[in-house]
Amino acid sequence: MPKVTVYSTKNCPYCRMAKAFLEKHGVPYTSIDVGEDAVQAQKMIDLSGQRGVPVTVIDNEVIVGFDAQRLNELFGNEEPGDIVDVLIIGAGPAGLTAAVYCARKSLRAKLISENIGGQALESWAIENYMGYRMITGDELMKKFEEQVRSQNISLGLDQASDISVAEGIFTVHTVSGAEYRAYSIIFCAGMKPKKLGVEGEEKYLGRGLSVCSTCDGPLYRNKEVAVVGGGNSALSTAIEMSKITKRVHLIVRSTIRADDIYIKLLKEQNNIELHPNSVITTIQGDKFLTGISILNKETGMETHLALDGVFAEIGWVPNTEFVRGFIDLNDAGEIIVDVNCHTNVPGIFAAGDVTNVKGKQIIIASGEGAKAALEAQEYLMRQ
Amino acid sequence: MPKVTVYSTKNCPYCRMAKAFLEKHGVPYTSIDVGEDAVQAQKMIDLSGQRGVPVTVIDNEVIVGFDAQRLNELFGNEEPGDIVDVLIIGAGPAGLTAAVYCARKSLRAKLISENIGGQALESWAIENYMGYRMITGDELMKKFEEQVRSQNISLGLDQASDISVAEGIFTVHTVSGAEYRAYSIIFCAGMKPKKLGVEGEEKYLGRGLSVCSTCDGPLYRNKEVAVVGGGNSALSTAIEMSKITKRVHLIVRSTIRADDIYIKLLKEQNNIELHPNSVITTIQGDKFLTGISILNKETGMETHLALDGVFAEIGWVPNTEFVRGFIDLNDAGEIIVDVNCHTNVPGIFAAGDVTNVKGKQIIIASGEGAKAALEAQEYLMRQ
Repeated sequence: MPKVTVYSTKNCPYCRMAKAFLEKHGVPYTSIDVGEDAVQAQKMIDLSGQRGVPVTVIDNEVIVGFDAQRLNELFGNEEPGDIVDVLIIGAGPAGLTAAVYCARKSLRAKLISENIGGQALESWAIENYMGYRMITGDELMKKFEEQVRSQNISLGLDQASDISVAEGIFTVHTVSGAEYRAYSIIFCAGMKPKKLGVEGEEKYLGRGLSVCSTCDGPLYRNKEVAVVGGGNSALSTAIEMSKITKRVHLIVRSTIRADDIYIKLLKEQNNIELHPNSVITTIQGDKFLTGISILNKETGMETHLALDGVFAEIGWVPNTEFVRGFIDLNDAGEIIVDVNCHTNVPGIFAAGDVTNVKGKQIIIASGEGAKAALEAQEYLMRQ
Repeated sequence: MPKVTVYSTKNCPYCRMAKAFLEKHGVPYTSIDVGEDAVQAQKMIDLSGQRGVPVTVIDNEVIVGFDAQRLNELFGNEEPGDIVDVLIIGAGPAGLTAAVYCARKSLRAKLISENIGGQALESWAIENYMGYRMITGDELMKKFEEQVRSQNISLGLDQASDISVAEGIFTVHTVSGAEYRAYSIIFCAGMKPKKLGVEGEEKYLGRGLSVCSTCDGPLYRNKEVAVVGGGNSALSTAIEMSKITKRVHLIVRSTIRADDIYIKLLKEQNNIELHPNSVITTIQGDKFLTGISILNKETGMETHLALDGVFAEIGWVPNTEFVRGFIDLNDAGEIIVDVNCHTNVPGIFAAGDVTNVKGKQIIIASGEGAKAALEAQEYLMRQ
């Protein structure tokens, strides 16, 4: 067995998944909390060149992030199985709800996803999921996951990369090289963070630039950071980061468009500096990000900010590249569904943030996941 | 102050609402649990001629059921207020979720409904609401209600009876004579139980015939009852009633169409007798129901069953009579909505069981309620 070390932070859902993967495959590992231990944090940064978690070190190989594909290559043993009734792609609120509904209808279902919980994992505090006055995204998704695991549903960590159909049977390939076959598909692959569109973005991702504040936030204690964006998630991230960092710069393209409750909380913090009408023009740094320049579009003035970290919270784009041409999409790249989650392809249903449903909310995605499962069942009965 | 007595059972949500109404209006009352006290149960039956709860006795007047209209006439003091941003009609899962979302968007919203929790109240055990492995409908709806009450939302117990629009302002009248005005409407009035279509049905409702087993079940301890229907709610009612009654007859029009899990639980009970392919032809009784005759449509044989109670669980019809002609409905009488909860009337949104969304589920209705609130907000911003 190789020597395995996982560098993680307490609330990072991807860290939890990396550890769960290792445990599932019987791989012993040492876990180090770099949110608590500054010396180990520096060691992790030196080893990986990264200021982001998780970092998994396997003998001499350093795996950055929760890389389901690489972990599957090293330790995985997924066998291509029989043809299942329903293949659910994506395990955010929509996919997990669809899984519970499929199980209760006694459908043979398999769920594959890059992670468990999707975008919901990254919410600091949720106050509008009915049934809970206040819960973190990670906690709520743990409850969803437990509900799925209490059912007879196979859950694999992998990423779909290709889909085709022949004689009523769908075949899905994944980035780890696996193949799955199913009589119907529930597609709920969610969204991924939008790019800033600034030079150096790829270079500094994980080296000062982060798209998961819940994961990487604890590594910026007493440092100076910027949050980019003007919506609910940007404000919520700025508020959370203001509690542990020295100072937060909030870079907003035009003006803030968020719920009043976040605006009120934002005003209560005295270490958040708002930069409205501003965009990032350049990212500076060497091995790690050291600062950004921002341009105020109204005044035309450019300002340099010396920073340790930048959190991009500028929105999301649907994970639909590999189904383009196979399933009808709208201009935003979202899958077009009807009121009962049917796509234009018989046997393929879609649910959650990946669809043209406008509200991107946990409770909405969950409801859509339930719909999709009920419709898949009806479709299968008619075959 | 009049002398007020409420006869109730422990888990009956309508009993709880009758008491909550009295408490809200500062009316002192005596509460008697007729599920526990057989002598008082008989007294209630004698007084009201009813075997159903709640029964509220106000001096010499006997109010049967939770009659929001009559209670409002006696104790109510709802004043027609200003024009609100959103009037939400119905307080089941859809309406309660819409209310929370409206509040978080700082919309001035008012919610009116005959009851709080809707059809969900009557579920014995819910295992497919995500976030809870198992919860009763009453408990879950209490959590929803608390979430609404933590926000600045006015919640009135009343029943809408008429809707009109002039110059972009909707006016809604209620059965208690109140008038509400709003710039937009979220319609989520849910469904009501379908009729059996047998002579004597009206006469014996509450006198042996019940449409709320959660409420009236405890009054049939050690008695012999029938449950009519072959879906999930009929099976779930039969299973629950089999635990407290001597014997349960399950009368199914054709065959059972329910989730496997209910079918399994049904088979585990030894005091449930299944009557497939059967319909009720007559109800017998004097002051109270004493039995039914059922016809087996396959064999042509008619059987008489001597019974103390019959629970109808044969499905639901949408509460849309008073909007017919004003909002587009489908053949089933459901409001036609698009994927974002728009009806054909600008400014009116609909959500939950009252719409053409096929899945009638708490999680689905909740998601739709959230959608409707977000769309109402966008509509109001554009006015």
